[in-house]
Parts: sequence; structure tokens; C-alpha cells
Amino acid sequence: MMAPLRLSRGDIEPVLVTGLLRRDFTHERAALCARLFVEASLDGVYSHGLNRFPQFIGMVERGVVRPDREPSRVRSTGAVETWDGRLGPGNLNAWACMGRAIEMARDRGVGVVSLRNTNHWMRGGSYGLRAAGSGCIGVCMTNTQPNMPPWGGREAAVGNNPLVIAAPNEPYPILLDMAMSQFSYGKMNVHRQRGEKLPCPGGYDLDLQMTDEPGLILESELATPMGYWKGSGLAILIDLLVATLSGGSTTAEIGERGEEYGISQVFIAFDLGRVGEKAESRRVLEAIKSSLRRTPPLREGGAVRYPGQGTWQRRQQNEREGIPVDPGIWQRILQTQG
Amino acid sequence: MMAPLRLSRGDIEPVLVTGLLRRDFTHERAALCARLFVEASLDGVYSHGLNRFPQFIGMVERGVVRPDREPSRVRSTGAVETWDGRLGPGNLNAWACMGRAIEMARDRGVGVVSLRNTNHWMRGGSYGLRAAGSGCIGVCMTNTQPNMPPWGGREAAVGNNPLVIAAPNEPYPILLDMAMSQFSYGKMNVHRQRGEKLPCPGGYDLDLQMTDEPGLILESELATPMGYWKGSGLAILIDLLVATLSGGSTTAEIGERGEEYGISQVFIAFDLGRVGEKAESRRVLEAIKSSLRRTPPLREGGAVRYPGQGTWQRRQQNEREGIPVDPGIWQRILQTQG
Repeated sequence: MMAPLRLSRGDIEPVLVTGLLRRDFTHERAALCARLFVEASLDGVYSHGLNRFPQFIGMVERGVVRPDREPSRVRSTGAVETWDGRLGPGNLNAWACMGRAIEMARDRGVGVVSLRNTNHWMRGGSYGLRAAGSGCIGVCMTNTQPNMPPWGGREAAVGNNPLVIAAPNEPYPILLDMAMSQFSYGKMNVHRQRGEKLPCPGGYDLDLQMTDEPGLILESELATPMGYWKGSGLAILIDLLVATLSGGSTTAEIGERGEEYGISQVFIAFDLGRVGEKAESRRVLEAIKSSLRRTPPLREGGAVRYPGQGTWQRRQQNEREGIPVDPGIWQRILQTQG
Repeated sequence: MMAPLRLSRGDIEPVLVTGLLRRDFTHERAALCARLFVEASLDGVYSHGLNRFPQFIGMVERGVVRPDREPSRVRSTGAVETWDGRLGPGNLNAWACMGRAIEMARDRGVGVVSLRNTNHWMRGGSYGLRAAGSGCIGVCMTNTQPNMPPWGGREAAVGNNPLVIAAPNEPYPILLDMAMSQFSYGKMNVHRQRGEKLPCPGGYDLDLQMTDEPGLILESELATPMGYWKGSGLAILIDLLVATLSGGSTTAEIGERGEEYGISQVFIAFDLGRVGEKAESRRVLEAIKSSLRRTPPLREGGAVRYPGQGTWQRRQQNEREGIPVDPGIWQRILQTQG
């Protein structure tokens, strides 16, 4: 594998924007879409940042993702709204819906926006960060196509349905952004290439025995949910929540399409300035952070971190040294200019 | 161990009610409190049903739980309210607050009630069931005293902060009721007594190595979060959510008291009749249930179940055969009459 290029935001964003403008994105939407891809890589979430851009462009070209479609409101009830994503770009739809949830939370304390007929939101953390940056706790949930066996089953029937929770914090929000699988296939591939076992069992081998050998799980395609039966249950309930509130498709229904599109999501914002008092939020945050800071590490030289702390360190490093971009990916991105 | 007694609701409830009446519960509150304890055991959640009643009575007698205190509203903003539990019985406080969330959801689509200064809610599923029985999706979260090392740490600094999500379903709600630990200490004890290993690593031994030997984890008292780093992150965010929204104590602050009381919770209800259309909710539910039903089981004779399905089976069995009650626990419960 070649050493990654180290590029700045300024090197990358104009290239993505050009590629998007050539595919019917308006200037404003191209700029936001490019920014979300770049910021995902800037924060070290390469798999849902630049590494995914060529695939995203492919979906636009095949008409699966419709660049000109904006979400439209289907119904509104007090503090809950349902929107239809109209198969527009998943990241732009999600950004808009979290924006709307924040707006609703300004006078209701909480805003809930459900979204159907949307597409992959790329990095889910983006929308949590948007809420946190606006003084809100943000909660985001999405379903996906079936990609994981439910607990006790031996075929993929539930999605890895990511859950994001973010809260205001300086210098970078508290940010939990997690899929319901214990390991992504991308992560298992990295371990396999390094000849390493997984740190804990992460799936089944072809004989349906649990294993920590990533190669055997990549072969069976049977990755276990995080926390095994617990993550399986949470994945099922997230599917139920997003599909029920939005009136959209479930994981099983998405699975009938052969390709992942038209998925369901929910965005929730709690406006801390409206719901509570600033001093209270600050006390809670400090109590939690200082308790983690004081916890002796399991391994010498280790540290107990709050969710998002590692992301913030990666962002700082990438801002200093440039964003690492795989040369092959960069070639494919440059080709989107043509 | 002696064989359990098999008692009916009618055998048990009057005994609990008498014990509660002798400790300053009003008739109405004693009846509800007794019912919640009995229904937990009826559904097979023995650890938070009758097995816990003697300890609960002990906390009432020591003045930690105040039988006569009802929660009072601290502030109200649109669809979010904050209540103070005034150290009243945790199950009665939680029942009242979910009731209020449901009421709020009737015209706002969603109701969010945060609760501070409350006590252990016993079986968290009770409040999810209340929401589901009222046509709502219910979400409940609580923090606890520190009882689990955060990922990367070697001292208990986070709570196992249970999360409950429930949705309407016939004949019994979909019900996820899970703590953030992979295994409870009670569960590990059962495995140890049977001489069995855990089905997956569930904690550290005294040398800080991950192990599936329950005896070694009971010795170190270092159980791992469910999904390891994922459950650790979720436990931290649940603590942040419940303490921030309620203005109540964090896990770390509760830990300074030497005994668990004055904890923080959040109850959320989404009124499905108000937010969506009945036919849509039914379609989603059927799509999810039938997809799980169709999934081939991992082991011959096994089955893939939706969350709550096993609970429903246990309830039916206990309704037929009587609720199993440990004779020693029953003795202690009878002593509360005196």
C-alpha cells in the first residue's frame, strides 16, 4: 500500500465541489456536501469521508441518489415532524433535518424530525456535531440494509443501524458515533492485513462458531452485533423507531431492493439553553469529564477518554500534518472532474 | 438451594401491600408499588422483582427512600419538563413521570420528562410497558452509582445505566430493557454456581486480562461494558443526558454518597396515534417481526426472537404455573408484615 498523500482542506474541497457541480448539485449544495466529506476525513472517519466519495458519485450517476431533490415536510405535530427525503443526497437531507430539529427545539425544548426515503448519511457524527455546535444535545439514528445476523440467527436480517449522541463541549463536542456491529468489515480487513486477531470475538466462522479471527468472519460475512444480544436488540428497536416515526422503510424492506436506498432516520435535538440552566450543564459535563480523567488506566501509559476525545486529537493532527488521502482514492476523485 | 415456591399474584400482592402500608405508603401507592414488584417477577425479572423487595423495605426503614414523597415539577418548556423525585420510591416516581410524558405526547407528539433526586426504578421495563400499553413508543434511561470500569480504565467510574425502549405490539409489547454491562453480577454468579464459563468475555481477572470465567470477574469486580468500548461510550452519554436534562446528579456525584440514591432519569413517549398513521405502524411492526421469524436459526431447534418475546413466554408460564419465589426471600417478605 502506498503512503497516503497529506492534503489540506483547501486542496480537496474545490476538487469535490467541481465534481458535484458537474452532476447537477447547486453551488450551495455542492459546497456543503464537499465540506461534510472533507470534515469526516479531517476527523479521521476516512471510511465515510473521502474514501466513500467515488462510490457516492457513482450512485448519483446511476440515478440512485438525486442531487437536486430537497426534503419536503409530510406532517407536523407539536414537537415532531416527518419529512420525505425524496431520495436526495443522504448527507444534505440529514443536515437539513437536524437543522430543523434544532429550530424546533428553540421554543419547544426538544425537536424531533423523522425522515423517510433518504440515502446513506455518510458520517453520522456530522449531524450530532451540528446539534452540539448549536448548544443542543443531538441524537441521530438511521437504519441500513440488512448486514448483520440478529442474535440467534445465521443470516443477515438486521442493519448495523448507527446511533449518534453528541453534546456541547469545548474544544470539541462529546461525540458518540457507533454502529450496532462490534466491528465493521473495513476494520476487520485492517486487522487481517496486519495479521492480528480482533481484541474480542466479532463474528462467526463458516462452522458458526464465534471467533476473533478477522479472516474467518470476512469469509462467513457473519459479524456479531456489539454486545451480542444487546446490540442485536438495539438494532431492532432503532429500526422500529426510525421506520415507525417516519412511516418509511424498515431494514427488511430496504433489503428487498438489492441496493441500499430509501432508508429511514430520526434526528432529535434538546436545546440546553431552553431546557435547563447553563451552570447545570457545565457542572454535569465537568463531573463526567473529571471522573474519567481521574480513573486509573488499565494499561500503563493508557488513558480513559470521553467519546469524541480521540476524534478531536485526530482532527488536530490532520490540521497540522494534512489530511491523509489514499493515492488510489485521490486518483478516482480527480477523475470525477472529467 | 431449595426449590422455589410457586405463588400466584393473589398470594403475593396483599402481603407486599401490608408491608408497605406499615411503612407510611398510602393505599393507592402501596397497591401500585406492590403490583410493579409482582409484575417484574411475573415477567421473569426476579432480580428486580420480589428478590429486591426486602432491600427496598430496608431503604425505606433507613429513611433513604421516602414513602410519602411525590415528584414535583421544577420547570416546563414546550415538550420537555423537569421533575424532582424528592427521594421518593423510585418505581412510583418513574411510573408517574412516564405517565406525564405520555400525557404530554398526546398533543405534542412527543413528551420528555426528566427526573432528578429519584431512586432506583427497580425494573426499568415497567415504564416502557406503560408507554407501549398507551399506544406510545417509550424510551427510559437512568444513571446509577459507579459500578463498571469505563473502557481503558481499571476502576468502576461509570454506571451500568440501563436503557429501555418499548413499542406497542400484541400480545405483548416489543421490549428492550438492557443495562450497559455485558453481564450483571447476578448473572455471573449463576454461571459460576453451575460451573459454566460465560458465553463471551465479560470482565477482567485480577491480572487485568479479559476473561470468560465468571468467578475471576466476581473476584476483581471489573465487569466489562456490553460491546466493550461501545457500551462504555453509551453509558457515559446516558449519564450526560439524564443529568443534564434533569439538572440532577451524575454517576460520579452519586458515587460520592456511599449509597445509591438521588439518581437521574429521563422518560420519553412518542404517541404513535398522534405522530403517524396506524396502518404505517402496523406495517413496520409486521415487517420487522416477519423478517426475524424468517431468519434461519444459528443452532438447530433455535429461533430468532424479537426483544420481549422471551419475556412474554415467561409471563405465560408463570401465569400458568405460579410465580417462582425463592423460599428465603419469601420468608424475608413475610417478616415485613410484623
